[in-house]
Amino acid sequence: MTDLETSMSTIIAVFQKYSEREGDKHKLKKSELKELLHDELPDLMAHVKDQAALDSLMETLDADGDSECDFQEFMTFISMVTVCCHDYFEHEHEDE
Amino acid sequence: MTDLETSMSTIIAVFQKYSEREGDKHKLKKSELKELLHDELPDLMAHVKDQAALDSLMETLDADGDSECDFQEFMTFISMVTVCCHDYFEHEHEDE
Repeated sequence: MTDLETSMSTIIAVFQKYSEREGDKHKLKKSELKELLHDELPDLMAHVKDQAALDSLMETLDADGDSECDFQEFMTFISMVTVCCHDYFEHEHEDE
Repeated sequence: MTDLETSMSTIIAVFQKYSEREGDKHKLKKSELKELLHDELPDLMAHVKDQAALDSLMETLDADGDSECDFQEFMTFISMVTVCCHDYFEHEHEDE
């Protein structure tokens, strides 16, 4: 696999590692999402300090309102974060 | 970095490797997109046989109509493909 294919496959594998833990194996419940964010995106989570912020994030991700996060909703979130990181580094680079 | 952070960073790096080649360094022109897809997603490109299909893909990705693909448009495409791969593997798994 190319690096890009490996990256896409890793995002799927990380989602499944947590979604399979409890209940619907194809969706993240709030506790699973919290564990995933805490363990896999620790730098981002350093900015999400309180439960209210996490509730608000879960509500934003949960486009279909079933209180769980399916893969499409998770991928939308990963995209948003990646675009923010890209914009940050792009502007960092322009300052050099 | 965690595997998820590495994956997100790889997607950004792959985009930049091609976008920097010609013209606007922050956008993929059609020739750069074609090279990226050909080299980094060879299995997918095996299904995109002709120029018309590539033109149509570029038009779909190019949400703001400037004939170039910026990082946000590229990330939307990568999301779509990853969601399709996830759905495919999820259904494969159910058949077992």
